[in-house]
Amino acid sequence: MTFLLTKTRLDSSIFLVAAILVSLAAFAVAWWLYHWIMRERVDHPQVERIRGYIAKGAHTFLRREYKLLALFAAGMTVLILLFLPQPIWQGSALTNLNMALAYVAGTVFSAIAGKIGVQVATQANARAALAARSSLRQSFLAGFRGGAVMGMAVVGSSLLGVALVFWLFADGSVILGFSFGASSLALFAKAGGGIFTKTADISADLVGKVELGIPEDDPRNPAVIADNVGDNVGDVAGMGADLFDSNVASMAAALVIAMALDGGARGPNSQMVFLYTTLGLLASIIGVASARMGKKEDPSRALNLSTYVTGGVFLLLTAAATALLNFSWQIWGAAIVGLAAGILIGITSDFFTNDNRSPVRRVAKLSQSGPAFTILSGMSYGLMSVLPALVGIAAAALVAYQLCASLGTEYALFGIAMSALGMLSIVGTIISNDAYGPIVDNARGLVEMAELGEEALERTDELDSAGNTVKAITKGFSIAAAGLTVISLLGAFMTEVNESAVAAGLAVEGERYLQGFDILDPLVFFGLLIGAAIPAMFSAMLMRGVNRNADRMVAEIHRQFKEIPGLKEGKAEVVPEYDRCISIATVGALRELIPAGLMVIVVTLLVGFIGGVKAIGGFLTGNIVSGLLLAIFMSNSGGLWDNAKKYVEAGHCGGKNSQAHKAAVVGDTVGDPFKDTAGPSLNTQITVVSLVASVASGMFLLFSLLG
Amino acid sequence: MTFLLTKTRLDSSIFLVAAILVSLAAFAVAWWLYHWIMRERVDHPQVERIRGYIAKGAHTFLRREYKLLALFAAGMTVLILLFLPQPIWQGSALTNLNMALAYVAGTVFSAIAGKIGVQVATQANARAALAARSSLRQSFLAGFRGGAVMGMAVVGSSLLGVALVFWLFADGSVILGFSFGASSLALFAKAGGGIFTKTADISADLVGKVELGIPEDDPRNPAVIADNVGDNVGDVAGMGADLFDSNVASMAAALVIAMALDGGARGPNSQMVFLYTTLGLLASIIGVASARMGKKEDPSRALNLSTYVTGGVFLLLTAAATALLNFSWQIWGAAIVGLAAGILIGITSDFFTNDNRSPVRRVAKLSQSGPAFTILSGMSYGLMSVLPALVGIAAAALVAYQLCASLGTEYALFGIAMSALGMLSIVGTIISNDAYGPIVDNARGLVEMAELGEEALERTDELDSAGNTVKAITKGFSIAAAGLTVISLLGAFMTEVNESAVAAGLAVEGERYLQGFDILDPLVFFGLLIGAAIPAMFSAMLMRGVNRNADRMVAEIHRQFKEIPGLKEGKAEVVPEYDRCISIATVGALRELIPAGLMVIVVTLLVGFIGGVKAIGGFLTGNIVSGLLLAIFMSNSGGLWDNAKKYVEAGHCGGKNSQAHKAAVVGDTVGDPFKDTAGPSLNTQITVVSLVASVASGMFLLFSLLG
Repeated sequence: MTFLLTKTRLDSSIFLVAAILVSLAAFAVAWWLYHWIMRERVDHPQVERIRGYIAKGAHTFLRREYKLLALFAAGMTVLILLFLPQPIWQGSALTNLNMALAYVAGTVFSAIAGKIGVQVATQANARAALAARSSLRQSFLAGFRGGAVMGMAVVGSSLLGVALVFWLFADGSVILGFSFGASSLALFAKAGGGIFTKTADISADLVGKVELGIPEDDPRNPAVIADNVGDNVGDVAGMGADLFDSNVASMAAALVIAMALDGGARGPNSQMVFLYTTLGLLASIIGVASARMGKKEDPSRALNLSTYVTGGVFLLLTAAATALLNFSWQIWGAAIVGLAAGILIGITSDFFTNDNRSPVRRVAKLSQSGPAFTILSGMSYGLMSVLPALVGIAAAALVAYQLCASLGTEYALFGIAMSALGMLSIVGTIISNDAYGPIVDNARGLVEMAELGEEALERTDELDSAGNTVKAITKGFSIAAAGLTVISLLGAFMTEVNESAVAAGLAVEGERYLQGFDILDPLVFFGLLIGAAIPAMFSAMLMRGVNRNADRMVAEIHRQFKEIPGLKEGKAEVVPEYDRCISIATVGALRELIPAGLMVIVVTLLVGFIGGVKAIGGFLTGNIVSGLLLAIFMSNSGGLWDNAKKYVEAGHCGGKNSQAHKAAVVGDTVGDPFKDTAGPSLNTQITVVSLVASVASGMFLLFSLLG
Repeated sequence: MTFLLTKTRLDSSIFLVAAILVSLAAFAVAWWLYHWIMRERVDHPQVERIRGYIAKGAHTFLRREYKLLALFAAGMTVLILLFLPQPIWQGSALTNLNMALAYVAGTVFSAIAGKIGVQVATQANARAALAARSSLRQSFLAGFRGGAVMGMAVVGSSLLGVALVFWLFADGSVILGFSFGASSLALFAKAGGGIFTKTADISADLVGKVELGIPEDDPRNPAVIADNVGDNVGDVAGMGADLFDSNVASMAAALVIAMALDGGARGPNSQMVFLYTTLGLLASIIGVASARMGKKEDPSRALNLSTYVTGGVFLLLTAAATALLNFSWQIWGAAIVGLAAGILIGITSDFFTNDNRSPVRRVAKLSQSGPAFTILSGMSYGLMSVLPALVGIAAAALVAYQLCASLGTEYALFGIAMSALGMLSIVGTIISNDAYGPIVDNARGLVEMAELGEEALERTDELDSAGNTVKAITKGFSIAAAGLTVISLLGAFMTEVNESAVAAGLAVEGERYLQGFDILDPLVFFGLLIGAAIPAMFSAMLMRGVNRNADRMVAEIHRQFKEIPGLKEGKAEVVPEYDRCISIATVGALRELIPAGLMVIVVTLLVGFIGGVKAIGGFLTGNIVSGLLLAIFMSNSGGLWDNAKKYVEAGHCGGKNSQAHKAAVVGDTVGDPFKDTAGPSLNTQITVVSLVASVASGMFLLFSLLG
């Protein structure tokens, strides 16, 4: 493949060293930002006390979650040692050991990034709250830079991890093992955090706002701290793990395909993978560093601007590198197409969920006829929003493929992988923007609970509302990124199958055991239909988990209001038992996520052992299609309902306490687990399934009933 | 393929003659049943007056709908004459003419069956109402036999039509043209009828029950007749057209594949298609004739029994025929697997929607916490119900395929087509059971409006409730049947492409232009993602149509109550202007369905002309997967909410007017367009897309941007 590098031939290590240096630079930036935040002391005892509660609750949840994950990971490690990528009695024990190590490293790297994110978020929230007393700009910066620590930590650790694993092992299966580790953690973090946060949110609202009529974030409410903890564990740690997972998976898929093209490790194609990722991280650092509010003081503009700056810098840097190093322009095109598609899909999500647009306003208006119409109209818009997003993903994949097919048909799949990589290049900034949301949401809660004044409340309200607006864009982006990533993982799966087939003696070197997956092959179709049902089942299980867990929590809140004297009346010095609510949310979330997570993995293995690799090819496809469909539908309708409620609360269609408001609250409650539990967990679910399938492909080749 | 017929070699005409004779026999049975119903005179002037309103409304709607369809069909006929299956300047003008004729015949046959069904349903309702004064058994029989006329008319005309077209033209494309005609009509009838019926239902409930607190079916309500008309045009004519469509499509797909196997028309494989369909119709006649209520007087048992009798008779008849004529047992096995899967899927639908089972009861219980929980829990169950249904379809397709692959790989797809045929063998009885529902629902309305007494009301309530229970089973069955049918249509599409390729000179005779559809081919994947978005868009458009139309109708009801003096107070002799509500529902339904129907056809053509036949292969697959997913989800959650409301109304969880009841009513209102508009229209939508793709395959081969 030397035609890609006619003028220059750099040693591969240069790209790896650059990747490692830039990821260390990201950590340094994170470190600097963290100290920038910690510079301000929290000089308000009430704020510090509540911040402490939140921080303690979040860390308790993370500790328990990680403990559970450690058990799961230990079991999985044993299975990998014994069976993956090849059964130990057939393959090489060393490869299994390497894969197991990479798997553990994947979970650990992701866990550390999550821990860092929560650590800083639970400090930044207090600083943002206190700064809001005097300055919107300072408050914004505290929120944004708190989020940016998470962004830098996630992207830095994912690039560092993949670079190290690649350097040490230079083996596709082992890299997939690292990605699988990241994915396992994401499944726990995203689904568990999602159940936690919505359990607390719904229960707090149900008893507080609906039954007792006390305001949001009222400190009398026993669930109010759990609700704030939920923002951190669901929206900071969970979302970070999700994007860590997508980011690593996109690199892993690209590297597996690149190595197959290069005929081994460290060829020009894997160099390009590292080059693009490194430049993406560099662009994110610049984007994050440049973010501040202009004179117009519009926080959403500042957030969006950082995204566009990152994208623009990435475009320029990669173009310069392509010109200088004489890399392929087609590959560059594929990456840029991916990036453009990601941004465009984010913008269509914004259309469906922004209260300046007709969908939110129509739903608010129809709410005047009652909650059934809120639900029906919101769902209709949610279902409609699927079309532009899927067309965007489909078009990006097709264009990337066609561009790169001109380099040779074997490059076409690599084009899709590179477009996923291009889309994810700005992920550092995306995470920063996304983690900003829960921090300023928490800050708003602190302002309310510690009574920092009306002006501070208005400022944090404005910051919070910007967080919600930007969230829709970043969510659409995350789904699109997961979509392109899993498409390239499908390509990686086929590559893995073909390599396993050679290892298992089912094909000779250079021969392709599988040409593709023919839809009319009944095994493929069988897998396709079952794969399509899994995201439906998974999201239903998570939603039922939230329902059941909220039931338990509501009972606890009722108990506290009944048994703690003076609580309801708001007597001074009477404090609810916040801990018990946090504990219920924690235990319940972990208990509810286990069956859902196991179901996904068990069904994947069942389909593989029944129908073999062809059935799995169909299974992954069905799973991608229905996972994307449901994720987009749920995220957008949930976001729409949330904003329709806020639109009504802002005084439209009858305003607060009107018929329309009651209906809009029903919509928002339905939308909560849609947009914050089930919808975003589907990203992770489809990645986990793809990776389980890839790492177990060797087993499916050897042992299957019909395959 | 003589090994299939080693002992006997019958002339093909015998099978065709038998098919035609048995379909004429079905018409004779329908005629006899109609006269059995008309024997009883409607001797109650009030009942006759209201019956007349309903009949007039239904026929008015049908006339307008058919007029609109005639316009559409005229346009489509011109397009077929010019372009299908080959552009007239390239292919044979005669084939285009034949296809156009077959297309028109498909719409006409289906329209006649629908007209017959509505004609008898609007007579049987009054007889069932009057009989309910004295006997549950007689009332049941009037309802059931009224439905059976529709069942016989639909199956008789579909078999007759296909047999005649096959006899006259013996050409796969022309048979697909007939099927496409049936499908176009079904799209209008199902979606239009679905919008009509739910517009009327929701508006009548919203103003009557919720705003004014008057009972269901109160004659003061201006929308009450429109609601009853809706039952006839949505659930009788619409559902009949839907199953006519599925039945014809399954025969068409099987015949196209059979002719390819036989190397032309009238070989043993197409004989088998006619044999199985004929025996299925015979079994349905026996099943319908045997249906009566036993001494225990349980109407749902009687309905289910007729299904099981039909299935059993079909099994025995086909086994006997296979043994006698020495046909292949593998093919028999495939048909029986399909039948078994259809019945099993119906039973799982029953589990999720029956109020004796935990899902309905849990949703009713959770409704005590408010409507958001009704919606969330109902949706969770609806999403869960997707898994068993898709596993059933996937397993049936896989087993049928594997069984028949033992006859030679080219038989495998034929196996799937035969299993769809087997599933649809009992369709005559299914339609009878299904059409029974709206008839007794209407009867209940007549009893209420004409004040035929408490006892009659109780009897019709019991009959109505049986109709609802059985509906879940028949709905699950219809979706499963559509699922298997469209899978075999995918096979038929590939067959058509390969034949068109030979005709267009792209491949030589005997060579296969397309081997299959590789998921990793970017054109296939491109189509797959877009195909998956179409059912979401289509159902959203229909639901919004219902929303908008209900808005218009509510305004009209308000106007009447305001402007007609004495109406609200229920003064004697004051009659609301029923006609205006019917007219609004009619005009609105037709106006709202056009954009949805056109969108489906236009996107199919766009994908075909952009990505060619490969993109269409993916497009059909994505459309099947997401169509089935959404149809099952919507039908089952809608049915569940309906029954949860009835369960609460029966006195559970607080009973009528409790918090739980209000929440359950919200669930039911959301569920109405789910289960009666969007969900069942998706069946038709996926068939229409499959047929458009098949008939236009020649054009996509010749003209496409990337294909």
